[in-house]
Amino acid sequence: MPKLITLEDIDALATGSAFLGTGGGGDPYIGSLLAKQAIRQYGPVTLLAPDEVPDDAHVFIAAGMGAPTVMIEKLMSLEDADRAVRGLERYLGRTATAIISAEMGGLNSVVPVAYAAMRGLPIIDADGMGRAFPSLDMVSFNVYGVSCTPMTLMDEHGQLVILETRNARAAEEMARPVVAQMGAQAMMCCYPMTGAQARQTAVPGTLSAALAIGKAILEGDGAISPVDRLVAALRAQPYYRHAHRLFDGKIVDLDRLTTRGWVFGTCVIDALDGAGQVTIEFQNEHLVARRDGQLLAIVPDLIAVVDRETARPIPTEGLRYGQRVAVIACSAPPILRTPEALAHMGPANFQLRDDFVPIEQLAGA
Amino acid sequence: MPKLITLEDIDALATGSAFLGTGGGGDPYIGSLLAKQAIRQYGPVTLLAPDEVPDDAHVFIAAGMGAPTVMIEKLMSLEDADRAVRGLERYLGRTATAIISAEMGGLNSVVPVAYAAMRGLPIIDADGMGRAFPSLDMVSFNVYGVSCTPMTLMDEHGQLVILETRNARAAEEMARPVVAQMGAQAMMCCYPMTGAQARQTAVPGTLSAALAIGKAILEGDGAISPVDRLVAALRAQPYYRHAHRLFDGKIVDLDRLTTRGWVFGTCVIDALDGAGQVTIEFQNEHLVARRDGQLLAIVPDLIAVVDRETARPIPTEGLRYGQRVAVIACSAPPILRTPEALAHMGPANFQLRDDFVPIEQLAGA
Repeated sequence: MPKLITLEDIDALATGSAFLGTGGGGDPYIGSLLAKQAIRQYGPVTLLAPDEVPDDAHVFIAAGMGAPTVMIEKLMSLEDADRAVRGLERYLGRTATAIISAEMGGLNSVVPVAYAAMRGLPIIDADGMGRAFPSLDMVSFNVYGVSCTPMTLMDEHGQLVILETRNARAAEEMARPVVAQMGAQAMMCCYPMTGAQARQTAVPGTLSAALAIGKAILEGDGAISPVDRLVAALRAQPYYRHAHRLFDGKIVDLDRLTTRGWVFGTCVIDALDGAGQVTIEFQNEHLVARRDGQLLAIVPDLIAVVDRETARPIPTEGLRYGQRVAVIACSAPPILRTPEALAHMGPANFQLRDDFVPIEQLAGA
Repeated sequence: MPKLITLEDIDALATGSAFLGTGGGGDPYIGSLLAKQAIRQYGPVTLLAPDEVPDDAHVFIAAGMGAPTVMIEKLMSLEDADRAVRGLERYLGRTATAIISAEMGGLNSVVPVAYAAMRGLPIIDADGMGRAFPSLDMVSFNVYGVSCTPMTLMDEHGQLVILETRNARAAEEMARPVVAQMGAQAMMCCYPMTGAQARQTAVPGTLSAALAIGKAILEGDGAISPVDRLVAALRAQPYYRHAHRLFDGKIVDLDRLTTRGWVFGTCVIDALDGAGQVTIEFQNEHLVARRDGQLLAIVPDLIAVVDRETARPIPTEGLRYGQRVAVIACSAPPILRTPEALAHMGPANFQLRDDFVPIEQLAGA
């Protein structure tokens, strides 16, 4: 019997997804409110393992695109998501039979669950990253051959934009100014695919992983600290098992710029024990962490900033001067570390000069 | 029997249209090359008077959108125009039975003729302005109730964008960054309408007017100067009859900025007889002319800069330091001077503080 996502799962799913969102992918509190309301209204959602998805299923993505700094002011709406998906259904002349998340994030892996509830459709236990990334082309669907377009963008005024571009990079370049014009946040539907394509190209098991990670954060028994419990839970996951608590400290500097539909910035953290300083650079998501100039972790591996006491993930738009935080890094799913994947989501794609070095090598050094 | 546009008409049509383009709407030389090639290949084009268009005709626009400074480097292509129109035909589920120009201009009223030849369709003797304007909402179709969207944009890589917006202003705001992303020039298809709508909202007779104006410029007999002949031809036209040769001079300063998908600028002209200085401001098209700070002519009335010897219109991208030019202004079609129209295309829409004053008042004062 397939697993169900119920009301009781939502807090853990949103929290675990926000951790995997590595600073981006939206605020888990807003995401959980949306999903709880939808499940209360429409009932629980069937979670399909990728190998349970029929080959000819019509798999649709429902996601938000924009700057997280704006998403906390301009809430995502299921009605806008519905208009984006139905716009693409009409354009393609076929109707969704399953929903999948584009990425993991406090909003972007929870809104699809809410939307699946609303449509009475199953959600696939998978996504296109096993983390979050700031750009449309940075998903396994693209790396392994699914076309990003036709795609739709929908704003809160019911305005629809349909794109057909030559590749996912061009879709990103065309969609970003549209999203900026839409007020730096829009709902989108892209990478329409079959069940067979979803199985071949998605990162499987990531919703289940987010649930387990979220539970570890929220359901401690007081025996060990929440951050240590989180690291232990990551180590129990196949993808994220090279997990390290890099640094505990206090945020002493923060620079954030919302522009061209993204938020760019740098966060500087002083060690609580006086042993140096960590700098994290982000573009919606955390990209690279350095201690006193030395590389600690780098994309596509995951870098998360969590509350030092509760282990709750802090999205980049929630970072504040003076916060006491722990910085955690863990390995990305292997599908993101292949040469093909690194060509799309490696450090060079973020104007970083460093080569990718796996966290297990950096932390072992 | 309906009139035909033949190979022999094209130079005059492109030249007259470029005059009515008031600095924008594209280069007449490029436009005439495209149209001549199309007519040679596909035969002449039927020119339908608006009252000959069936009520239920499917009328489609084929036009370029972008900065004229870019259009002379990146040529418009009939294939891209065709993809834009066919993209909208597919989206709407109906096929064009007649073509209409969005505006007058060296390219934008000649490319539709070429495209009509290619498709074997008639072109309507009308457009949405009787001149050119830099913004999608500044057409009589919009002022009198035709929806701008759904519309399509097509770039030279075959990339398609379909927009559905709440009004024409929003379409402009959404399309402009897309066009900028497409390299500041794209082909578009918008304001899909019926024959009845075209008849009710278009400015009739403007292709015929352009032909007559172009002939006056090109076919002089040497008895009077080309510029005087041009002014006389304008005075014989019902719309443009308040026509004045404002100023003869030499361009002494030129400031041009291609940004956000437009070209903005100022052209300063010193009187040849030493009697003062004229400043013309433009956004793709000429907007306002002042002599020593005093208003000479202002949108929506037409302001054209022509070669002083040949009377050939000079598009804003063709203005050069040292050129000897005549500045001509004439009245806009009455349909552009109504309060409803001025709300869309009056001076305030170009951040000008002046009120609209008709040229016949300014020149008579």
